[in-house]
Amino acid sequence: MYPTVYLNGQYLPKEKATLNVADLSILRGFGIFDYFRYADGNPRFIEDHLDRFFSSAKLLDLEMPVSREELRTTVHELIKRNGEEEGGIRFVLTGGYSPDGYTPTTPNLVAMAYPFKGPSAEQYERGMAIHLHHYERQLPKVKSIDYLEGIRIQPLLKAKGADYALYVDREYNVRESDRSNFMIVREGILITPVESILHGITRLHLLRLARQLGISVDERAVSVNELKQADEAIICSSIKGAMAITTVDEVLIGNGKPGPVTRRIMEAWDGYCASN
Amino acid sequence: MYPTVYLNGQYLPKEKATLNVADLSILRGFGIFDYFRYADGNPRFIEDHLDRFFSSAKLLDLEMPVSREELRTTVHELIKRNGEEEGGIRFVLTGGYSPDGYTPTTPNLVAMAYPFKGPSAEQYERGMAIHLHHYERQLPKVKSIDYLEGIRIQPLLKAKGADYALYVDREYNVRESDRSNFMIVREGILITPVESILHGITRLHLLRLARQLGISVDERAVSVNELKQADEAIICSSIKGAMAITTVDEVLIGNGKPGPVTRRIMEAWDGYCASN
Repeated sequence: MYPTVYLNGQYLPKEKATLNVADLSILRGFGIFDYFRYADGNPRFIEDHLDRFFSSAKLLDLEMPVSREELRTTVHELIKRNGEEEGGIRFVLTGGYSPDGYTPTTPNLVAMAYPFKGPSAEQYERGMAIHLHHYERQLPKVKSIDYLEGIRIQPLLKAKGADYALYVDREYNVRESDRSNFMIVREGILITPVESILHGITRLHLLRLARQLGISVDERAVSVNELKQADEAIICSSIKGAMAITTVDEVLIGNGKPGPVTRRIMEAWDGYCASN
Repeated sequence: MYPTVYLNGQYLPKEKATLNVADLSILRGFGIFDYFRYADGNPRFIEDHLDRFFSSAKLLDLEMPVSREELRTTVHELIKRNGEEEGGIRFVLTGGYSPDGYTPTTPNLVAMAYPFKGPSAEQYERGMAIHLHHYERQLPKVKSIDYLEGIRIQPLLKAKGADYALYVDREYNVRESDRSNFMIVREGILITPVESILHGITRLHLLRLARQLGISVDERAVSVNELKQADEAIICSSIKGAMAITTVDEVLIGNGKPGPVTRRIMEAWDGYCASN
């Protein structure tokens, strides 16, 4: 974490950025967050992230203690005070110091800045190994802090040699990963789920980029079988941008290397981000 | 909260009992807890609660930073330092200050004491109104801090005039409430779910008490229809002991008043707790 943290209107040294143990995030896991990168001092897709953060708060009936304008200003101030050109910003909004330990009250708002470390060139070239895991996120459209299952299964993924899990629902459709969305390519068309997922900002912009590149996009459910038989598959997030999925539970996707559509999108992504 | 809090080996004034915003409970809702009452300075069923707390930690691969003996001593010390004869104790164990914001590390351990305020005599006499809600807790056997859905639906319960929700699974069986278990009485037999629920310590002891009173007990799934047609129904937790459920989504249970088996259990509970 970078040295200066924003907490409820104050900029504090990170060591002093603390919440009392009465906070509902600590007692009840009740809170939301958002995360985005910044480069050359400019936050990436900040308006989309502000939209989503305010939307998550509304869906959980948490009252945002600052206006959108104030929060945008906070982001720029936090970047400035930390003095680094590159990084990631995380907002967290919690249920606050509830007198009864259950009912949300005035939320606590935190904004933290982190050094940014993305995947290596070798990882982009190799592609990611996926393990399919039966799980449905609760309140999928809310970017809540609930990562109980995602974190719990990390040792399992390691044991299986997988980089990430993709969550499979009770209809055997593949929805998303713990911190990423996913897409497949089939006969040149980019296909990605749209229902019951967290609407990733990177997902949104990758779809825009694809359309700009003349790639057809289809937003609809993707079954496990369809994923395993796809020509190409992509996992995407703010941290990784687009990466190829090259194996799914040891089944090779395509020829087990990043495919042509994935490569076109990966290669165009940094330019797209820089000009948007 | 009572004035003194235990945090990672220290007894602190509650205002100073804080966790850094890097803690995984705040960032990722990753943690477990337990709660029990104490009366006349004696913690109730403490060995059962220690069993469950250590079991929850193990299921999430969190390393308990103290031994069972040390934690038991902490409970007695916390009660003594707060100087009150009656109250409730909450343990919280979090994923700790994770360097990558995702992988659990050395946990933070908190123990807090609270004044105890149970339901009123009038509430015990009236019984509780229940709203059935479709939801399945993730990792039901772990007493995790995940109360996202339980808290989210509180305004809905209020709007419906319900005191508590009972969660209905995809097979239309009723599993549990957000912070309580439940039981029904049918032809004199006490029936309560046993699979895919949090095993409440109050549930455990109410079943023992019932057997002592000569009431037959059957631990098995209970469907929505069976609940609605039950002679009696009970909601139970450390805070409330046993309370009658008198309506379920506006359907009266029995004659809409606490029934004879429920009353026998309610009346014997305090004596059972005092002598166990």
